[in-house]
Amino acid sequence: MKKVYFDNAATTKVHDEVVDAMAEVLKNNYGNPSSTHSFGRSSKVLLEKSRNTIAKHLNAEPGEIIFTSGGTESNNLILQSAVNNLNVTHIITSKIEHHAVLNTVNMLHENYGVKVSYVKLDIRGDIDLTHLETLMQTEAKTLVSLMHINNEIGNVLNLQKVANLCKKNDVLFHSDAVQSVGHYKLNLKEIPIDFIVASAHKFHGPKGVGFAFVRKNSNLKPIIIGGEQERGLRAGTENLHNIVGMETALKMADKNLESTTSYITDLKQYFIEQLQNKIPNVDFNGTSSNLNNNAYTILNVQLPYLAEKSNMILFQLDLKGIACSRGSACQSGSEKKSHVLTEILNETELQKPSLRFSFSKYNTKAEIDYVVEVLKELY
Amino acid sequence: MKKVYFDNAATTKVHDEVVDAMAEVLKNNYGNPSSTHSFGRSSKVLLEKSRNTIAKHLNAEPGEIIFTSGGTESNNLILQSAVNNLNVTHIITSKIEHHAVLNTVNMLHENYGVKVSYVKLDIRGDIDLTHLETLMQTEAKTLVSLMHINNEIGNVLNLQKVANLCKKNDVLFHSDAVQSVGHYKLNLKEIPIDFIVASAHKFHGPKGVGFAFVRKNSNLKPIIIGGEQERGLRAGTENLHNIVGMETALKMADKNLESTTSYITDLKQYFIEQLQNKIPNVDFNGTSSNLNNNAYTILNVQLPYLAEKSNMILFQLDLKGIACSRGSACQSGSEKKSHVLTEILNETELQKPSLRFSFSKYNTKAEIDYVVEVLKELY
Repeated sequence: MKKVYFDNAATTKVHDEVVDAMAEVLKNNYGNPSSTHSFGRSSKVLLEKSRNTIAKHLNAEPGEIIFTSGGTESNNLILQSAVNNLNVTHIITSKIEHHAVLNTVNMLHENYGVKVSYVKLDIRGDIDLTHLETLMQTEAKTLVSLMHINNEIGNVLNLQKVANLCKKNDVLFHSDAVQSVGHYKLNLKEIPIDFIVASAHKFHGPKGVGFAFVRKNSNLKPIIIGGEQERGLRAGTENLHNIVGMETALKMADKNLESTTSYITDLKQYFIEQLQNKIPNVDFNGTSSNLNNNAYTILNVQLPYLAEKSNMILFQLDLKGIACSRGSACQSGSEKKSHVLTEILNETELQKPSLRFSFSKYNTKAEIDYVVEVLKELY
Repeated sequence: MKKVYFDNAATTKVHDEVVDAMAEVLKNNYGNPSSTHSFGRSSKVLLEKSRNTIAKHLNAEPGEIIFTSGGTESNNLILQSAVNNLNVTHIITSKIEHHAVLNTVNMLHENYGVKVSYVKLDIRGDIDLTHLETLMQTEAKTLVSLMHINNEIGNVLNLQKVANLCKKNDVLFHSDAVQSVGHYKLNLKEIPIDFIVASAHKFHGPKGVGFAFVRKNSNLKPIIIGGEQERGLRAGTENLHNIVGMETALKMADKNLESTTSYITDLKQYFIEQLQNKIPNVDFNGTSSNLNNNAYTILNVQLPYLAEKSNMILFQLDLKGIACSRGSACQSGSEKKSHVLTEILNETELQKPSLRFSFSKYNTKAEIDYVVEVLKELY
């Protein structure tokens, strides 16, 4: 059966070059990077080379890159330690963050009494920056946690603006950049942000590895405690092959950033046009149809179908070999409605089926034609 | 240059079959196991197959196996959640645990006021079981955390006996089994233990993956919060290729357990004999020269050399291509003395160089001859 994969915000195909680099490490560099003998030292060299590559990509210091098991752990490290070790008592966030942030913030509220403020969103899901600055006017030690690119609707936060606001108001700023690292270039010397997190499997690297950028002298402490790895910020033998895989994927992303961006943007534009041509009254959630101010990798489509068809559409697409999603994969096993769309759509809109299509360089216009054809048949 | 690797307690060579299984998953199963479409479902099938294999090996329920990023995270999950969610206010442990336990327990003492009792050890580093039971006589909700096999001296704890004691005294029991899983067969239906942890890279699997066995109805809660993965006990997209690699390594260990055990035991015996023959007054730390009651994978050698040579020996061995260690790799970057040997040796003994050699099926008697020859030259 024809199979098309439009769920690249959930996870991406691992590049062949990444698999090869990982297999090479698995076969020839099994030393523990903490061991002082030659086997350990050659692993340590690879580890620090990866750290340097990643730091350079972000214009950060190598010592500011902390390897972890992924985006979720990185978000937990920053949020939990901000409360436990940096005396943060007030977190400003939004209701459309990933659950790795939302649920952690909730736990910190329930178990540690942290005050949580949710910033207002406009009707398209963009953050109200005026309200954000108002929320910063407090004596409480405050951290802002807002994602760079929303994983469901692709809305892009202006990191530079928000970082400047935070700096001006003496507030810490953390951003879940899981959907942007590897797709957008960030210059962390220019953006005065304290923390960002990334995950390799969102940019054609392996699952189970990511990193936290932790600005120098932050005084963060580990949540996973034990050995002295990662300058004492994350204990546990380093996942070397995965880290090298992440480095390889990021190098490839960096090298081809312009051509990939332009190729995928063109796909997205084509998808929007085809949908508008073939499916009357189709709509798009968030700012996702705005090609200038939304992730080029994500399109959240609101179909004009009857409500009773909603639950069946993903199933029917799957039968036709088409992979897309309703929202975050982490929640997709459940029947829950998207917490993001619930925040920005009205009751009528919520009755209609919404689907997230997310793209990579491995997608083609022929695949888009096929999807639009199938969606049209279902109408 | 000749290279010999005798540091298998730090980490092991990844089996070729494991690398192949991982590459296969990386290439052909990139779907997110939480996605409901066909790409996700085929990943989910692999994930649950791995869980079943591992559960079966331990005679546990699949739902009792929680995949994590390794031994350290697993220990943290159990210890931190025992205090935060199971109301544990008293932890009994020993001073010769791995730092993933020692430092976590310390943190729980300092930040949460948990009372910590250290059980007495005999002169060879074995746990004093009478003292252990005395320490359990308290009204405080208590958890015992004692490792199955000591990573430096190879001493083996009688899990069955300690689990029975804990059960009898209504105390929770956790064991860091990082050095035993994959080398010894455990039957968790027979041993009434609450929690164990394991790490794949200690049995020829990949780094960056492990599991926690969490007995049914334990009420543990996650320390890494976010999505609903791992039955809500560990958020974050599953490290599928690493998990399949761990499964493959454990299957191979299981299949060849008897022959590997006998092969390595023979190597260890040969090593002991050669050292005793060639190096007068050589001694062995802990119970490590006792072939009936110590890990067959570990030998901790105390050399009769002059004190001033101590710091140079590892360096000289490394120059000859020999990899071994002074203690845990996680601490080996530092100049600190082994915290394990400090507990069981006297001042004179501590002045002498001690080296941990740890074995795998990839070692040979010829390698042992070479090491003994080099050690003799250094004398």
